[in-house]
Amino acid sequence: MEALSILSGILLLLLSGAQSHEPVLSEKLIRDISNYSEIALKIIDYSLTGPGANQSYNRLATFVDRYGPRLSGSSNLEDSIDHMLYLLQQDGLDNVHGEEVNVTHWVRGKEIAQLLEPRSAELSILGLGSSVGTPEEGITADAVVMRSFDELEERKDEVKDRIVVFNPTYVSYPVTVAYRVNGASRASKYGAVATLIRTVGPFSIYSPHTGMQVYNSSVPAIPTACITIEDANMLDRLERAGERLTIHLYMEAQTLPMVISRNTVAEIKGSVYPDQVVVVSGHLDSWDVGQGAMDDGGGAFISWQALSIVKGLGLTPKRTLRLVMWTDEEAGGIGSQQYYQRHREDADKYSILFESDEGVFLPYGILFSGSAEAKAILQQIGQLLVSINASEVYDNGGGTDVDWWREEKVPTASLANHNEHYFWYHHSNGDTMDVLDPEEMNLCSAVWAVYAYVLADLDDVLPRG
Amino acid sequence: MEALSILSGILLLLLSGAQSHEPVLSEKLIRDISNYSEIALKIIDYSLTGPGANQSYNRLATFVDRYGPRLSGSSNLEDSIDHMLYLLQQDGLDNVHGEEVNVTHWVRGKEIAQLLEPRSAELSILGLGSSVGTPEEGITADAVVMRSFDELEERKDEVKDRIVVFNPTYVSYPVTVAYRVNGASRASKYGAVATLIRTVGPFSIYSPHTGMQVYNSSVPAIPTACITIEDANMLDRLERAGERLTIHLYMEAQTLPMVISRNTVAEIKGSVYPDQVVVVSGHLDSWDVGQGAMDDGGGAFISWQALSIVKGLGLTPKRTLRLVMWTDEEAGGIGSQQYYQRHREDADKYSILFESDEGVFLPYGILFSGSAEAKAILQQIGQLLVSINASEVYDNGGGTDVDWWREEKVPTASLANHNEHYFWYHHSNGDTMDVLDPEEMNLCSAVWAVYAYVLADLDDVLPRG
Repeated sequence: MEALSILSGILLLLLSGAQSHEPVLSEKLIRDISNYSEIALKIIDYSLTGPGANQSYNRLATFVDRYGPRLSGSSNLEDSIDHMLYLLQQDGLDNVHGEEVNVTHWVRGKEIAQLLEPRSAELSILGLGSSVGTPEEGITADAVVMRSFDELEERKDEVKDRIVVFNPTYVSYPVTVAYRVNGASRASKYGAVATLIRTVGPFSIYSPHTGMQVYNSSVPAIPTACITIEDANMLDRLERAGERLTIHLYMEAQTLPMVISRNTVAEIKGSVYPDQVVVVSGHLDSWDVGQGAMDDGGGAFISWQALSIVKGLGLTPKRTLRLVMWTDEEAGGIGSQQYYQRHREDADKYSILFESDEGVFLPYGILFSGSAEAKAILQQIGQLLVSINASEVYDNGGGTDVDWWREEKVPTASLANHNEHYFWYHHSNGDTMDVLDPEEMNLCSAVWAVYAYVLADLDDVLPRG
Repeated sequence: MEALSILSGILLLLLSGAQSHEPVLSEKLIRDISNYSEIALKIIDYSLTGPGANQSYNRLATFVDRYGPRLSGSSNLEDSIDHMLYLLQQDGLDNVHGEEVNVTHWVRGKEIAQLLEPRSAELSILGLGSSVGTPEEGITADAVVMRSFDELEERKDEVKDRIVVFNPTYVSYPVTVAYRVNGASRASKYGAVATLIRTVGPFSIYSPHTGMQVYNSSVPAIPTACITIEDANMLDRLERAGERLTIHLYMEAQTLPMVISRNTVAEIKGSVYPDQVVVVSGHLDSWDVGQGAMDDGGGAFISWQALSIVKGLGLTPKRTLRLVMWTDEEAGGIGSQQYYQRHREDADKYSILFESDEGVFLPYGILFSGSAEAKAILQQIGQLLVSINASEVYDNGGGTDVDWWREEKVPTASLANHNEHYFWYHHSNGDTMDVLDPEEMNLCSAVWAVYAYVLADLDDVLPRG
């Protein structure tokens, strides 16, 4: 493009900007938000170099080192919730309590997969959440490898009495996770006896990743587990080379009756509108592998940290700042759904719900779902975070635990952070404290605290659509 | 620095260059080497887009998928050598044979480590090569965590009857590997009952890496295994938090009597000086985890490929081009040492030995050990590889299997390649075909073939120091 064209392009861009229909905030609201600039700097200092520095990382390390992973239904999870309630009380927060909910109780038990032909080799597996187990003697069957559901349809006549190995190329988590979630029933429809699904992720060092799967009730429930990317590719190559694949699979997995767990709640009570709330949240449960440090210890602990910072600075917002650490997110937001059902009648008192469940790496802003006017308010608040390069507001905020509230048009938001490697570790033994960084968590906590405090202290709850 | 200073600096540099004492090759030798430019281009084309394209990768995948990892003393290794001899014969190479050597026979057996206190957790381990096992009932003991040998010396009074966990920060492989190699005996000296060593590597997704360790015969041999970086850090944090660590370790590892294995040899017999040789090599044995694809299937197979390319192009060099796939490198070059002892009397007939055992990633040249004059010859040959950006010649070439020959002043060389992630996978279950790339292996094969062919075809063997 020539120089003149570039110049006219810029002019057009400027003109189109001037003609846009973005909501214009009132002078007063802009001034009100700008007035928080000193408080925002205090929050940032407190979190980066003050008493809050490295606090969320260190608290989380102590917590996950002590309790390990926290699967719904496990004593690990309930013990960790007991301790969390103690910690929140020790931190001097208000109204610390657990809200009881019914949660799933799936247990993995022992599990083994062995390649018998064309050579003997152990295959590292992780059974998928809600999977049934095998018979006591296990399942020994020949295997077929399918790279896609399309290939399954084309080769459906080869599937009966076979173990189906799915080896789809990773496109993105939301796209490729379909194989993990639906693979078992898609193959069972044609008579498969078990499925082994390539781990849903972009990179692996021979690490299988578990996760939820869902049976279609119209076909038999068959055992299903994930295997590593490396083994999926190896089995694929062997099949294409004409080798007969025989696999032995043994899984003790079973689903037990639901049990009672708790969403963990703590607050800083609002000084003027105590019934109105801003929620910051993450989930305390995790898969039963690794430490559940990243997913979602990090999100839960920066949310706690947001309240700790506000309290540590002696601030009391006009409305209530509520921390919720959800339970049984991993089975599909089981705890948060019951919270929503119980509290939805108060939807007009919820200004916004924040959830961090996609990493607490270097933050660069937030993602938001709500009205254009509400977004403009968040963008204005974002200006208070320019000094830490976290001022951007993107669309499509939310998360499994807060998206329920969209039905009531309550705004939701999540943390925009450099989580490019999130799916390297997600739902695997690699989800440990080594993935996280104290300074990045300090920054995330500051972002979370600035948004949460300012929104809890403005004159009004956020406008709906 | 000011502009005038920069200019005078450049002038000084030019002058010092002009005054250097680099060896000057004869006009004839420069011309002789330049005359290979057409052949070099043919080799490159053959390897990148011709019949050799992807051949080394595909051959290796078929091989490691069929045999898996190939630990010294295992039937896997011997079966794979049998098949390798068949493949080399099928490839039409000369003098295909196995040269018998005595090799180590260490077997891993079952192995388990469990953290009992302060909480119950499985610790993923890999016993270290040559380690003894535990008693049948295992070892249950409290653990102490040492970040360095210095700390061990300072805290030596705390070590008796304890399991010592070493958690040294990774500096580099040659530096940090001291903990894996000597950690057990260093701790045994002060009465430790076992050692768990943090995996020697810069990055992990909860993947333990095995490797060789060596007992000091003056202290009791105690069981020793590596643990993941993540668990080493967790145990370290727990100890610093004042927690008592109790670990149960069970290992069946044992060293059996040495057995006979083979170095695998194939040649393109020289047309003029058949008794003189250029050796290209890698090792066929591997640790008993992953597929031994990178370490060192890749090195062995690009070495084979070098001969395949030369043969495929119908070329016959003046002296013999010899492929050696060493056995039992992993225990310290056991197979290659015996080869050296058997053949060292012919050292003057060895022009150079190449070994690729540090990855077959994107190549950018070679590393060389030998006289300045020999290096100048290799630099001149490197000019034939400018078109694929692999013309550089660095110092300090060689490898475990060829360094023996330095005693006889025979030049050695290895492959300079972008192996920055080599130690992410090395000696772990992550060492699979997924780590390698067909096009990178094409380039490595071309580099290997050009150097090997030209050096085998020049009038003289490389000059000694």
